[in-house]
Amino acid sequence: MTDLGFARVDVDRAARTGDPEVVYGAGKTPDQVVAILRALHEKHPERAVLATRLSTESLDVVSRALPDAAIDLVARAATLGPLPTPHGTVAVVAAGTSDAPVAAEAALTIAVHGAGVDRVDDVGVAGLHRLLGVRDRLAAADCLVVVAGMEGALPSVVGGLVGVPIVAVPTSVGYGASLGGVAALLAMLNSCAPGVTVVNIDNGYGAGVHAARVARQSVPR
Amino acid sequence: MTDLGFARVDVDRAARTGDPEVVYGAGKTPDQVVAILRALHEKHPERAVLATRLSTESLDVVSRALPDAAIDLVARAATLGPLPTPHGTVAVVAAGTSDAPVAAEAALTIAVHGAGVDRVDDVGVAGLHRLLGVRDRLAAADCLVVVAGMEGALPSVVGGLVGVPIVAVPTSVGYGASLGGVAALLAMLNSCAPGVTVVNIDNGYGAGVHAARVARQSVPR
Amino acid sequence: MTDLGFARVDVDRAARTGDPEVVYGAGKTPDQVVAILRALHEKHPERAVLATRLSTESLDVVSRALPDAAIDLVARAATLGPLPTPHGTVAVVAAGTSDAPVAAEAALTIAVHGAGVDRVDDVGVAGLHRLLGVRDRLAAADCLVVVAGMEGALPSVVGGLVGVPIVAVPTSVGYGASLGGVAALLAMLNSCAPGVTVVNIDNGYGAGVHAARVARQSVPR
Amino acid sequence: MTDLGFARVDVDRAARTGDPEVVYGAGKTPDQVVAILRALHEKHPERAVLATRLSTESLDVVSRALPDAAIDLVARAATLGPLPTPHGTVAVVAAGTSDAPVAAEAALTIAVHGAGVDRVDDVGVAGLHRLLGVRDRLAAADCLVVVAGMEGALPSVVGGLVGVPIVAVPTSVGYGASLGGVAALLAMLNSCAPGVTVVNIDNGYGAGVHAARVARQSVPR
Amino acid sequence: MTDLGFARVDVDRAARTGDPEVVYGAGKTPDQVVAILRALHEKHPERAVLATRLSTESLDVVSRALPDAAIDLVARAATLGPLPTPHGTVAVVAAGTSDAPVAAEAALTIAVHGAGVDRVDDVGVAGLHRLLGVRDRLAAADCLVVVAGMEGALPSVVGGLVGVPIVAVPTSVGYGASLGGVAALLAMLNSCAPGVTVVNIDNGYGAGVHAARVARQSVPR
Amino acid sequence: MTDLGFARVDVDRAARTGDPEVVYGAGKTPDQVVAILRALHEKHPERAVLATRLSTESLDVVSRALPDAAIDLVARAATLGPLPTPHGTVAVVAAGTSDAPVAAEAALTIAVHGAGVDRVDDVGVAGLHRLLGVRDRLAAADCLVVVAGMEGALPSVVGGLVGVPIVAVPTSVGYGASLGGVAALLAMLNSCAPGVTVVNIDNGYGAGVHAARVARQSVPR
Amino acid sequence: MTDLGFARVDVDRAARTGDPEVVYGAGKTPDQVVAILRALHEKHPERAVLATRLSTESLDVVSRALPDAAIDLVARAATLGPLPTPHGTVAVVAAGTSDAPVAAEAALTIAVHGAGVDRVDDVGVAGLHRLLGVRDRLAAADCLVVVAGMEGALPSVVGGLVGVPIVAVPTSVGYGASLGGVAALLAMLNSCAPGVTVVNIDNGYGAGVHAARVARQSVPR
Amino acid sequence: MTDLGFARVDVDRAARTGDPEVVYGAGKTPDQVVAILRALHEKHPERAVLATRLSTESLDVVSRALPDAAIDLVARAATLGPLPTPHGTVAVVAAGTSDAPVAAEAALTIAVHGAGVDRVDDVGVAGLHRLLGVRDRLAAADCLVVVAGMEGALPSVVGGLVGVPIVAVPTSVGYGASLGGVAALLAMLNSCAPGVTVVNIDNGYGAGVHAARVARQSVPR
Repeated sequence: MTDLGFARVDVDRAARTGDPEVVYGAGKTPDQVVAILRALHEKHPERAVLATRLSTESLDVVSRALPDAAIDLVARAATLGPLPTPHGTVAVVAAGTSDAPVAAEAALTIAVHGAGVDRVDDVGVAGLHRLLGVRDRLAAADCLVVVAGMEGALPSVVGGLVGVPIVAVPTSVGYGASLGGVAALLAMLNSCAPGVTVVNIDNGYGAGVHAARVARQSVPR
Repeated sequence: MTDLGFARVDVDRAARTGDPEVVYGAGKTPDQVVAILRALHEKHPERAVLATRLSTESLDVVSRALPDAAIDLVARAATLGPLPTPHGTVAVVAAGTSDAPVAAEAALTIAVHGAGVDRVDDVGVAGLHRLLGVRDRLAAADCLVVVAGMEGALPSVVGGLVGVPIVAVPTSVGYGASLGGVAALLAMLNSCAPGVTVVNIDNGYGAGVHAARVARQSVPR
Repeated sequence: MTDLGFARVDVDRAARTGDPEVVYGAGKTPDQVVAILRALHEKHPERAVLATRLSTESLDVVSRALPDAAIDLVARAATLGPLPTPHGTVAVVAAGTSDAPVAAEAALTIAVHGAGVDRVDDVGVAGLHRLLGVRDRLAAADCLVVVAGMEGALPSVVGGLVGVPIVAVPTSVGYGASLGGVAALLAMLNSCAPGVTVVNIDNGYGAGVHAARVARQSVPR
Repeated sequence: MTDLGFARVDVDRAARTGDPEVVYGAGKTPDQVVAILRALHEKHPERAVLATRLSTESLDVVSRALPDAAIDLVARAATLGPLPTPHGTVAVVAAGTSDAPVAAEAALTIAVHGAGVDRVDDVGVAGLHRLLGVRDRLAAADCLVVVAGMEGALPSVVGGLVGVPIVAVPTSVGYGASLGGVAALLAMLNSCAPGVTVVNIDNGYGAGVHAARVARQSVPR
Repeated sequence: MTDLGFARVDVDRAARTGDPEVVYGAGKTPDQVVAILRALHEKHPERAVLATRLSTESLDVVSRALPDAAIDLVARAATLGPLPTPHGTVAVVAAGTSDAPVAAEAALTIAVHGAGVDRVDDVGVAGLHRLLGVRDRLAAADCLVVVAGMEGALPSVVGGLVGVPIVAVPTSVGYGASLGGVAALLAMLNSCAPGVTVVNIDNGYGAGVHAARVARQSVPR
Repeated sequence: MTDLGFARVDVDRAARTGDPEVVYGAGKTPDQVVAILRALHEKHPERAVLATRLSTESLDVVSRALPDAAIDLVARAATLGPLPTPHGTVAVVAAGTSDAPVAAEAALTIAVHGAGVDRVDDVGVAGLHRLLGVRDRLAAADCLVVVAGMEGALPSVVGGLVGVPIVAVPTSVGYGASLGGVAALLAMLNSCAPGVTVVNIDNGYGAGVHAARVARQSVPR
Repeated sequence: MTDLGFARVDVDRAARTGDPEVVYGAGKTPDQVVAILRALHEKHPERAVLATRLSTESLDVVSRALPDAAIDLVARAATLGPLPTPHGTVAVVAAGTSDAPVAAEAALTIAVHGAGVDRVDDVGVAGLHRLLGVRDRLAAADCLVVVAGMEGALPSVVGGLVGVPIVAVPTSVGYGASLGGVAALLAMLNSCAPGVTVVNIDNGYGAGVHAARVARQSVPR
Repeated sequence: MTDLGFARVDVDRAARTGDPEVVYGAGKTPDQVVAILRALHEKHPERAVLATRLSTESLDVVSRALPDAAIDLVARAATLGPLPTPHGTVAVVAAGTSDAPVAAEAALTIAVHGAGVDRVDDVGVAGLHRLLGVRDRLAAADCLVVVAGMEGALPSVVGGLVGVPIVAVPTSVGYGASLGGVAALLAMLNSCAPGVTVVNIDNGYGAGVHAARVARQSVPR
């Protein structure tokens, strides 16, 4: 346990769960993000630590204060330290371009948690031909993260195509009766395709952790 | 206007809107349903009148009191009088077997309102091959009524396949977070496929009226 | 399929559905809107492409970067390329002046999708005399788009006057218990007038697509 | 205060508010209803006491135990004692036949609270001609109680016709997205017609109390 | 009907309902507010017109463009033209200082609609002694407008003290589980005090119209 | 830990928290309730164990199988074993007769958990005189449990009278917009009286546990 | 595809996804369940087919009509045909005895889908000592299914103990503000423990499918 | 009662409830906050008055206008006058660093209301070892205030460890399906640990008042 004054950082988490350290950036000042990233990195120099949900200001301050950090502007996230060797593969499937930030957060999380990533973008259900064209890539993955907003139908369609474990991520993309992503969330929870599990709205990180754990423990194909 | 004591029956509706007379059976006693059907039929002997949302008891009483009535047990509905000659075609597409009652109500309503019906059942999104196999039938219709419960994804997928006007009907099929059909309703309202309009949960009748109006005014193919 | 780097543009949609190409401007930068409009226009120079939900900045950038674009400030939309010859007529009926942006989006969408438009504004249910005065115009249309916020009662009243297919559009006009348009949405879904179908809150575009499809396939009067 | 063992009956309410005594029958046994009615009647023999929301069993037991009681089967209510001389008039307007129980409860409440009642039934917004035909009766009342389920649009239309104070009563008539009357409730709260106030779903009693108070204190016309 | 280009102003409303003309300022530019106020005033110079829900900028522009207008900064409203002679009295009761803007809107609306106003402020239910001290003023009014946020309990307590018709106005004052005023709204709709009717959240205007109509038609005391 | 086959009974709870053992009867068969009560009583013969939320059938079976059990028909609960000597006093205040079952559950729970009970019934906010008459009893208690349905206003009024810690219990008494007790729950959470805490709808048990803990640790007066 | 008249049975699903055939029994008559089970079994005699959500009547009819079927009364499910050899292990963790049916459905689903099951019951968060005592069993599993109603806190606590992929199943156990399981669902979606994914309320089946897929593809320990 | 023009300050509250005077700063201008603080302090110079929910500007103005005031930047609150001698102890337990402002508001409120405070921070349920390490401190308190956002599980876990009265405070920390703190609120209301009571989202003040009352009346240990 390291005490930074404004936070007691749990530096032993890795030992308990096998996962890397992560900083949840929302509600933290840029300086706090930098301080926690630095403290975690010093404890775990051999393995990347991850900071998510960074404000534009935090992304800027981190990039200047920690020149070795890798910044992902789409995912609004940063990593510090070397990525682990990937085991297994997670395909991250996104319905529309507006879903890109959440898909990117999932993809980066997966990489930081030790699995490989295959990105499949722009495969909304209203254009099935795109989706059918990538069926083999989907079937080849150890786990799927399927990201969609609006009516959230994509996980059901994907779940009918392949028997791979699926984590669905509803996004807040939409307006009016999308209710900030609740419509997509409900749709995914009611998927008629078996084996679809769901995370919170816009929670690419949570989906990525689950999927990476599944992929890295899977028998290599 | 005909006064039956318990209801003033608006027998001039046909003249105003071109639609047949309809009895909404919910909350009415079997005897009331019979009396209204009989009164409407006497005013409009040349054209079928429709009674929907009939209880098991009402279906039974109607079939005995009005031997000329046609009973649809799946739709829980009855008609009295000859069906009009159909103009145009509406394809009624249903996702699962549990959606059959709503699809049947829509189909009967369409027939009573003067359009032809093409039923396409059991084409859920988790089994795309069935849906792709009927694409030509869908494209040949003047209007589509697409019925689905649970995640309500079918209208989006259908809407990506063809450019026909679509009326989506959410059903109350599901449990838990389906919230009595609200999940499917929200999904359909947020469809990423353009041109999808929506009616109330389980409202096969309302969808049928809209679709029949569209079909019977369409240029014959 | 054209790849712009930030988006794969589906330039074959027109062939599949008979509809024009459309750019959903929300969440896109002005430069992205311009780039997509330009790419779609090059593929389809003979037919207008449409961009909706443009920010003030996007409207400004589009008007300067694409001087041939037609800008609709009320609808917050732009078109590039010649409008198609209209077939059939959709009457767009709006309850109040605050509903004008949604009505304008519906009207422009209808024109871009190949149908004629008849605008009927300021006919709220609390002043029935205005509405009764335009009954003939409503009855003469092939389809109606009825736009209303607050209690969303207008489609029910219109639906009692004429037998034309109706698409109701709830708007987010209101406060407090309007719940951002949910009150109007629920009212429209529960309309006692048969044949009323509904789209998402503020979704003039979706209503326009459905109505234009209906109008352009209707038998000329 | 009279203590019946299972309830302390507030027999002084009339003095405080000028209103009669009322028994809310829901959740009470038939015997409790009879006992409270009898106790209140003994204290106030000169003025009718009212029991509402009576079960079928309670209606039956009351009618046998208290032969002087007047039973209203539609309103599911009973009165015991002479009705007061009416002052002023409340018009009770109902949209559909399914709304009759709530309208009847309102009407009986008004009579018990000392105002006259003018019933106007079956004037739904989808058939405006009926409503326009009774405009003079509406304008002649001192207060209006307007009862409607489903989309709850009737108060807005009535409120645009006359300047009389209006109390709107949403009913639970409907299904699916009517959400047990919440859709009608929200619509009425968002009425664009000024001066419309609202009571709880199916609360004919509450509307009747307010309207009777208004009518009986109004200057005679 | 006067056409201002951006709005058709219904200048005949007064004749229909006996109420003054009102401008709903939300969503209108300051110049539009000024133009409508001026047009209405020219048609009705003998009677005040009212503009509500004015932005700070609109209040400023109106005060400079229409020097004869009376500005109410608390109510965020303006009037132009002479107030009518008051008939009857409405007591406007407010629970807390944060409810003052809504109470002020109600009070001004009442005055413009021809009734007298008695303001009773800061009488929250957690300090009953204040409320009990003004019981005689409440009983002397022809109608009560009771304004409260948070738990919205005040109308129930007031309704137990006097038999005057009550209009309850929930306000959006509160946080968290107040859900923007929905908690107070629900509480008021479920009031155990008979005769309480309710308007939309923060709708001092609507409450004022109803209460003024009641007061001005009441028999003078 | 005692294993009964269908349940592992945690017989060490008393040692951990100082509270008695409790059986939550909902969803358990009468025989299961009897078996668990018996097992707990054998482990703790010196102190009453409590079973709550018993069905009519369970109440009957328990009373016959365990003749030493004390049955509380109003609370739908049973105890087995001697009640502890009470320390301190909790006043249980209920708004209406319909709230009696929840108040009774709270009162019995308090007694079983070692505190004294003072019941104050029928003190709804619409009849303040009753409440003001018992102010001294309320002020004399160590903790208050205030039970109310419908608008849930009672805790706010009580909280303005005395400075005693208050636990508010919303009940499901009501209809329509009471939403099964949610209206009362929200009202209580938004109470303007400081120091009011809240438990789940109809949760007399939870309120009783908290209140009894507070009372029995209070300095005797 | 096999057509049974009332349903087209998709007998090729196994080939597509590697999963067994499953009959969703809700809404189906006992005879329909028997017929579908028999048809699926004939197509796949070498591998168990599963029927879930069976009514008491269906369980009875199945057990008599298909004597070879294995009936699970707690899970309300049946299987027909030999269970596959298990690969990997899923620990099914349940918070309370009321959650047993959902946990049993998950466990049976896992076995039918080819993974081993380790049941861990009665480990609610209010008794942490039980949970800490089984930490090693949890850490030894390839995937966890964590079942809880009421506040749904168990997955968060489990997720802080081990790094195994977790599927959380909210149950409808609770009352009042549990809103039929929505409270537990929301809690699980907001879990502060990373890697927790969620399925619909009471959906033991869906959780089981996902977990079995994960377990059977995991590297043997 | 002191009249400041914009507010009537209830300076007699202390006598009625034994609590100090408090200013709810939300919606008040900095100058109003200063004026009320000063007026209350003059009436009660011997005891601290508290101002909560102060804006950054109000905190700044108060600190300059009232140099004797103590400013708590984390709690966004200020006190003026000497804190009372503490009686009893409340442990304030917080799950995460983001919950610090609410925990600080609770802690300051407790001190102002006359009880001692023991702060226990960063003891989220996903890291049980921290929580188990402070069990003795929790058991030694007279009352617990447990603050948590997201899934709101902490009060249940704490409630299983000790038998101390618990007040749970849900916070708005979270996103998406946390619904602004509603998820945590619902979880706490459904806690399986007995004796947990709940206050409004982010209402550290209300929890503090209740807990301080409990602590200061407790028998010293």
